[in-house]
Amino acid sequence: MYFPAEIIKKKRNKYELTAEEIEFFIMSYTRGEIPDYQMSALLMAIFFNGMTTTETVTLTKTMLHSGVVVDTSSIDGFKTDKHSTGGVGDKTSLILGPVVAAAGVYVPMISGRGLGHTGGTLDKLESIPGFNTQQSLEKFIELTKKIGTCFIGQTKDICPADKKIYALRDVTATVESLPLICASIMSKKMAEGIDGLVLDVKFGSGAFMKTPAKAKELAQALMAIGQGYGKKVVAMLTSMEQPLGRFSGNSLEVFECLEIMKNKKFISADGIDLYEDTRELSLQLSAHMIFMSGKTASLADAYNLAAEMLVSGKALKKFEEMCAAQGGDIHKLPSAKNKSAVVQTKASGFLQAYNVEKIGLAGICLRAGRQKTDDVLNLVSGIEFHKKIGDPINMNDVIFTIHGDEPQLFKEAEDLLQTCFEISLQKPAPHVLIKETLL
Amino acid sequence: MYFPAEIIKKKRNKYELTAEEIEFFIMSYTRGEIPDYQMSALLMAIFFNGMTTTETVTLTKTMLHSGVVVDTSSIDGFKTDKHSTGGVGDKTSLILGPVVAAAGVYVPMISGRGLGHTGGTLDKLESIPGFNTQQSLEKFIELTKKIGTCFIGQTKDICPADKKIYALRDVTATVESLPLICASIMSKKMAEGIDGLVLDVKFGSGAFMKTPAKAKELAQALMAIGQGYGKKVVAMLTSMEQPLGRFSGNSLEVFECLEIMKNKKFISADGIDLYEDTRELSLQLSAHMIFMSGKTASLADAYNLAAEMLVSGKALKKFEEMCAAQGGDIHKLPSAKNKSAVVQTKASGFLQAYNVEKIGLAGICLRAGRQKTDDVLNLVSGIEFHKKIGDPINMNDVIFTIHGDEPQLFKEAEDLLQTCFEISLQKPAPHVLIKETLL
Repeated sequence: MYFPAEIIKKKRNKYELTAEEIEFFIMSYTRGEIPDYQMSALLMAIFFNGMTTTETVTLTKTMLHSGVVVDTSSIDGFKTDKHSTGGVGDKTSLILGPVVAAAGVYVPMISGRGLGHTGGTLDKLESIPGFNTQQSLEKFIELTKKIGTCFIGQTKDICPADKKIYALRDVTATVESLPLICASIMSKKMAEGIDGLVLDVKFGSGAFMKTPAKAKELAQALMAIGQGYGKKVVAMLTSMEQPLGRFSGNSLEVFECLEIMKNKKFISADGIDLYEDTRELSLQLSAHMIFMSGKTASLADAYNLAAEMLVSGKALKKFEEMCAAQGGDIHKLPSAKNKSAVVQTKASGFLQAYNVEKIGLAGICLRAGRQKTDDVLNLVSGIEFHKKIGDPINMNDVIFTIHGDEPQLFKEAEDLLQTCFEISLQKPAPHVLIKETLL
Repeated sequence: MYFPAEIIKKKRNKYELTAEEIEFFIMSYTRGEIPDYQMSALLMAIFFNGMTTTETVTLTKTMLHSGVVVDTSSIDGFKTDKHSTGGVGDKTSLILGPVVAAAGVYVPMISGRGLGHTGGTLDKLESIPGFNTQQSLEKFIELTKKIGTCFIGQTKDICPADKKIYALRDVTATVESLPLICASIMSKKMAEGIDGLVLDVKFGSGAFMKTPAKAKELAQALMAIGQGYGKKVVAMLTSMEQPLGRFSGNSLEVFECLEIMKNKKFISADGIDLYEDTRELSLQLSAHMIFMSGKTASLADAYNLAAEMLVSGKALKKFEEMCAAQGGDIHKLPSAKNKSAVVQTKASGFLQAYNVEKIGLAGICLRAGRQKTDDVLNLVSGIEFHKKIGDPINMNDVIFTIHGDEPQLFKEAEDLLQTCFEISLQKPAPHVLIKETLL
């Protein structure tokens, strides 16, 4: 017999909870036998006092087993996925899924929607007319087997405990807790029935973790849980100090991925290919996904194989195949009717820094992102980036272009974007995209 | 426009809340517009991050004004009350009410029930057959005016916010928070419409605050709030390292008070009057209540006046008058049919220390106290104390006598009581009842 208030008090007093206490609390809550007010008190106590690795693993396991684990045993081959902690313009899934699948490694991907300043894979795919992300788990397995990759949203059968707890965290200021984040991410990923996972843990002004040190802490905690399940896990610590690639916004990001898979470049006024960082990060993540499958003898070989999938057009073909199988018509990708340039009028110099979170909020002004889970998006709106950190900036240079078909929303986004960049007289240190890889 | 989750986050991040934010949150919660789960998250954040004095005063004020403030303006004279933070055998209200009223100072007292190991004045009075603690506020004023003192329970009109929040704290492990305790106590006391308040802040093994330093901290916080309301407030820091007086248990405590008001003594085997500490603490608290009214020129005069009320039998007469007015027949006070001695068999020496909280729990075993707010009490059961700290202890000395009429409950209480005292070879330092008085 367990008393919920005693379990809350134990965590409040910084004692370690037993596996039985965690299971009792989480499962009773999921069944509706423990009320929201006791769960929110426990969540806040966890926010302050944390959880040990043992507790976090138990929490993950309990949330995982609150629902079904996808049975991927009928897929004959290595199954891998990638998880990103979220950012602005972070569109690598759309490239690495097809690349890795084209290389012969399965990528069954269960993705999320955008919330706050960060985007979500499901929203991006749904900007493709007809694309259906709500497939049954049977269809998910069937399409993964047939094509090599499939992208769906979380179903009600997967981690119902996480679903209920996440909704409560959102309204009780208990989102920003390392063990709760870890358990939420990893329970869903472990439910996919994968063999290996590559984590893209972001740091910087547009990331949940503001510093590389904090990102590393999160990465290590996530890896420990995944490895505890006997999975291969690799984590890359990557920069969200500037938006990734040329665009943020749903159909704009799909367009950028198509351009990259068509091997196009987009050279900026400063002579830089604005697709380069998206391409490079996608290839590096792909390389780790391929290498962990044992498909290649070295990571370098895996990278070369991924690049070959891109250059040969095989990834593009795989992407088109995947879209068609899920009902999407890639040739009908919509684009915005209106554009508006955001010009800098402050000073000449170099682009010193971005406030990427604020850029994401400007995206919300344009309805490219959502503030609340039930906000409806405008899938063609978004922001185009013309400058990277370190680029020379002259008076009247265009820094951003707003895309959208609701021009009445532009003013607020423009005003916000004007405050999202800093100019310095001295050229800043070069921006490093990939800080560290944890194997 | 305020967002509940943003207010929770602000407190979680250790920022000071504005008066508007506190009022919005508390009043919206009281009206049912903010759900329990957000309030419990805020309470846990307050548990961890505390509140500034300004915040605590605002919280008190908001809870106070969530209901009515008793209009005592028709009572022509100084109105005073006492609040104790709770203990075992702590029965002084029943003596000081009549003593102070007999001295010509009004004592309108709104009391509480026992919870956990501590007793409550209402339960004690209800052991007197016919005594009605549920009077209307009009009747409360009328009886106070007529007799000088009246004892009632909290009505639904008084501090509804505190009532709702207290119930939630009880089930979410957020009781033990200094600002929440302060606001809960002081909002109810300020609602009584009194001019002055004497606080009996307990320390020791039977108190909520285990050390004098912690008790002093609570006392100072409570005083600051009361003084902020322009009230005269005095706090005594008193020991709960041993039970107060000869008995704990509801009708047993009323019996002890009657004996004291009849100027009787009860001399123990060691030649000590076991009523002495109850009498002395009651007189000292009474003295402060009388002195703050301006009735006497000095505290010493106030003490002498209080003692005179006791010796002359005027306090007893006042007590009988008060009971009769509230329907109680003091001549029919019931007593238990069965007794059982708890004898020590460990060693000879001196009584070194009590675990007073455990003694309170033994009282719960006998149904003299309650574990949950809806537990029904047995009003005649309780525990008699034969020894005080420092008394010589010989083999087979009786330490406690259990009183009750449910002998089947005695065994568990006996076993617990056997673990509630320590014996030492060396005589311990004398026990000090009143540690400090804060004026």
